[in-house]
Amino acid sequence: MPAYKAPVDETLFLINDVFGLERYGNLPGFADATPDLVAAILEEGAKLTEETIAPINLSGDQEGCTRHEDGSVTTPKGFKEAYDLYTEGGWISVSADPEYGGQGLPHTLTVILNEYMGSANLSFSMYPGLSQGAYAAIHAHGTDEQKRAYLPKIVAGEWTGTMNLTEPHCGTDLGLIRTKAVPEADGSYKISGTKIFISAGEHDLSKNIVHLVLARIEGAPEGTAGISLFIVPKFLPDANGDAGARNGVSCGSIEEKMGIHANSTCVMNYDEATGFLLGEANKGLRAMFTMMNHARLGVGVQGLALSEVAYQNAVTYARERLQGRALTGAKAPDKAADPIIVHPDVRRMLMTIRAINEAGRALVVWTSLQGDVADRSIDEKEAEAAEDHMALLTPVIKGVLTDLGFQNAVMAQQVYGGHGFIAEWGMEQFVRDARIPMIYEGANGIQALDLVGRKLGANGGRAIMAFFKQVGRFLKENAGNAELAPMLKSLEAGRADLEKAAMWFMQNALTRPDNAGAGSTDFMHLFGLVALGLMWGKMARVALDKKGSGDRADAFYDAKLVTARFFFERLMPETRAHLARIEAGADSLMALPAEAF
Amino acid sequence: MPAYKAPVDETLFLINDVFGLERYGNLPGFADATPDLVAAILEEGAKLTEETIAPINLSGDQEGCTRHEDGSVTTPKGFKEAYDLYTEGGWISVSADPEYGGQGLPHTLTVILNEYMGSANLSFSMYPGLSQGAYAAIHAHGTDEQKRAYLPKIVAGEWTGTMNLTEPHCGTDLGLIRTKAVPEADGSYKISGTKIFISAGEHDLSKNIVHLVLARIEGAPEGTAGISLFIVPKFLPDANGDAGARNGVSCGSIEEKMGIHANSTCVMNYDEATGFLLGEANKGLRAMFTMMNHARLGVGVQGLALSEVAYQNAVTYARERLQGRALTGAKAPDKAADPIIVHPDVRRMLMTIRAINEAGRALVVWTSLQGDVADRSIDEKEAEAAEDHMALLTPVIKGVLTDLGFQNAVMAQQVYGGHGFIAEWGMEQFVRDARIPMIYEGANGIQALDLVGRKLGANGGRAIMAFFKQVGRFLKENAGNAELAPMLKSLEAGRADLEKAAMWFMQNALTRPDNAGAGSTDFMHLFGLVALGLMWGKMARVALDKKGSGDRADAFYDAKLVTARFFFERLMPETRAHLARIEAGADSLMALPAEAF
Repeated sequence: MPAYKAPVDETLFLINDVFGLERYGNLPGFADATPDLVAAILEEGAKLTEETIAPINLSGDQEGCTRHEDGSVTTPKGFKEAYDLYTEGGWISVSADPEYGGQGLPHTLTVILNEYMGSANLSFSMYPGLSQGAYAAIHAHGTDEQKRAYLPKIVAGEWTGTMNLTEPHCGTDLGLIRTKAVPEADGSYKISGTKIFISAGEHDLSKNIVHLVLARIEGAPEGTAGISLFIVPKFLPDANGDAGARNGVSCGSIEEKMGIHANSTCVMNYDEATGFLLGEANKGLRAMFTMMNHARLGVGVQGLALSEVAYQNAVTYARERLQGRALTGAKAPDKAADPIIVHPDVRRMLMTIRAINEAGRALVVWTSLQGDVADRSIDEKEAEAAEDHMALLTPVIKGVLTDLGFQNAVMAQQVYGGHGFIAEWGMEQFVRDARIPMIYEGANGIQALDLVGRKLGANGGRAIMAFFKQVGRFLKENAGNAELAPMLKSLEAGRADLEKAAMWFMQNALTRPDNAGAGSTDFMHLFGLVALGLMWGKMARVALDKKGSGDRADAFYDAKLVTARFFFERLMPETRAHLARIEAGADSLMALPAEAF
Repeated sequence: MPAYKAPVDETLFLINDVFGLERYGNLPGFADATPDLVAAILEEGAKLTEETIAPINLSGDQEGCTRHEDGSVTTPKGFKEAYDLYTEGGWISVSADPEYGGQGLPHTLTVILNEYMGSANLSFSMYPGLSQGAYAAIHAHGTDEQKRAYLPKIVAGEWTGTMNLTEPHCGTDLGLIRTKAVPEADGSYKISGTKIFISAGEHDLSKNIVHLVLARIEGAPEGTAGISLFIVPKFLPDANGDAGARNGVSCGSIEEKMGIHANSTCVMNYDEATGFLLGEANKGLRAMFTMMNHARLGVGVQGLALSEVAYQNAVTYARERLQGRALTGAKAPDKAADPIIVHPDVRRMLMTIRAINEAGRALVVWTSLQGDVADRSIDEKEAEAAEDHMALLTPVIKGVLTDLGFQNAVMAQQVYGGHGFIAEWGMEQFVRDARIPMIYEGANGIQALDLVGRKLGANGGRAIMAFFKQVGRFLKENAGNAELAPMLKSLEAGRADLEKAAMWFMQNALTRPDNAGAGSTDFMHLFGLVALGLMWGKMARVALDKKGSGDRADAFYDAKLVTARFFFERLMPETRAHLARIEAGADSLMALPAEAF
């Protein structure tokens, strides 16, 4: 069975040494987040994920969820007990609003803990993960009464949440939604329709499930301008605020799918269910989009999470599996063969994953901190810049970390040879589970289009220019550093490719939008490489500074410097190929008539 | 449920127009392979795969194989009937030796039919596929008596075959094999040991199963120099040559695995089973290796096969799924949304798969024809050159077409959005099934090492120099062609990168072997791109020549030219990144101590 160890020290290196959490001390809730408290929280979270949640990952995959004839759903063995421990530990409430029972700590901590949870057991992590989404939506758009009715229950973990967007004929294109809402005399609505792919739609972990449902109020305008968001609880709150009468919503079936078997992915049937408008009528999509950055960042973290746990297990296997001899002569002559970690091609795979994970985690922490600034800073200029950063980097993190996370899981599986294909080793589950983050919460092609079509040009390109400035400033500040020089040269080349790509869109995509669409995925990955490169630059700089300081064994910093070098030598050169594809434009893509495919 | 249509016309284009099968007419068996006969065989094979074998692919995956308490194994519903139709049609015998009941036709036809079979149902195709392997081994190394005893039964499909190499502690490194063979007075051996990952190890399709087993004769030298190959039939042939007494070999369990659920992957227990030495004692590995090229080429074809069927279904979905509007304005204004094939990013995915599949198929056909020349030509010089080609290109085809085949299946799945993750749509099965060809028959890292460590330098680099000459000749012959010029420029750049890489190994890997290992996978993929590029060059040239000839609708040739352009603009630029990684060398890979990972 695979194992998992939460990378707490890696996280602390980022929080304390690279990004300096104490610099954010003026934000609400950050003053409480002392280094000691943060370390203690992460250690406790690590313990829970390692000892309670990871051990039911493989068994959960094999057992799956069971829907009973009455429409109820049972989660796999051990999930209910683990969920109870999770809620008793207060893990849902870490960064929630103290007014509703939360601890008010930085949201960044929740993001980090979500990485650990996702590594340990992606299926399990989705149940509270969806509660976080419902919490955010109601917190942002609910009336005071709605907040008081739902948030304390969600924060306590007594009730969980879901997001209901997709219908059979309607995924990305939410304007096609048919689920209808009929106004009642008391201000509520009767919701009717069918939603599919509803994660955690029905289960036995909580006393109630709060469904957030996109629907069309009768007579609303066509398309996206006529979509509203509703709260549809499985049980209607009674006079005491507890789960009361059963509402007209039920799970029609659970999907047979490639992975995340322990999460119940439901077809949800709404049959004149009582719903309550959340936010303004016909502004449902806007309400959804305000939460989208957090949700998409969270999915990017899932890609990182699976890549990390797959990496850890591949390393263990590579150290233990004896097969063949090193090209340079036996390294373990006393044994029948050398451990396969002596082989350069095995190391190529491990170093690739490692280089992406460590920089990916840095990018996530950096961006989450910006998210906290955007949400909590009272300095408008600072909040605006942070919001720009968050909006620009979110599709990059979601698209790039999930694409690479999947590739990395596949690579880690490859280290196992034939054993990687066998269920009991657990690697093939990581691959199957890592496939879904590339798809849900906006398929990665949609992330790329969001980046190129919406984020790049927003406010006259303000966000991307600020990003270029950050890279430029870093390069300038470290220009004289001989040890960093080859890395900076590589980063500089990557930045130049990214700038050329952005310029090419300016010159070629405004008049011909297909040129933007044709280059969008390559642009997203090109951007990702430069952003990850900036993270490696920052980490390498700190590693150089801290080496010999005695804070940690120097081996920690040496490993950072080697991995940084690997990244710049081996992964950054890909920017050129991305640029070449972008500059090739749309012609060869659009030339064939549909029937010629 | 996914559908499949065998690409017969694509194959005929390659056989007749690009590679001119008639030019091989002097080889034994080729004179019979008239264009009409070949077309008829492929049409019949297409019909069988489309109507009989593809329809049991999804159900076979869901049902899987069942091992019963007595060790017997049942294949999924419909497999036995399909296998009977397959053998009655004489499909195993197409290119087999007429002396043993074969039709003696080009082996290339078998390779092509294996593509269709693999697309339709990879699990199913493996049962007769392993028989082909056993046939080849016994045909090459058996005594006349052994050939007469086993080959007619295998060719008729009455008996099937298996290959038994892997043991729990021993995959790539076959020198570690422990299965032992004890000589008996009658010249036979008693075989004892455990083999794992034995595809088609036990099933209900045939009357007998002929296991080929690597084992160590008692007292043999250590390591690979002490391995012998044995024939161990499930039932010993009786006096009439039929399946007689039960032998001491049985299936201990079947593996739970990621994909190919309908193929029984067995743990095989040998308990003093009677075995017959095949070929010379202690030369078992050499005997295995002589078949390896055919087997590895066959696995490369599996990558192509899954990529092709995944592509076909993604195209259908992209034409039918209505979602969003084209960036350039509505293309289906009468409908609620446009089909997603209007979106450039969807086309990027489809064009990528298509560009790889068509060139991959060309590379397979070209190389298979060289394999036929190597096996059948009486001109020694010609046979040697063909053997060089086959030996050099085989690891490229195996490694590159299976890596890309998997990536393509993932991309095709991505076109489906959320539906791609749901079992009933069938796309996730293609992804799971496409994962194993990257691993078995030598994991792709081993292919890369075989290419760089063994094939590149063999006979003073004769094979690679011949390959470079072929590319050079093609470039020279077409130098004046204005329509091909941009493509040739791209091919030339790719060739230059490949030459630089080969040169870099010459200068840097002889003194430091880790530099070869560190660049091997990139070299394999760089080689693959240049080889696929040569194929696109040849196909584009033929398309230009044939356009307007009336042989086919011009749309066929137009599509070839557009796809060729796409390949050279979008896929070939990757060669530069591969070269950069190769030239980075082994330093950053080998620097970390194993415990620092």
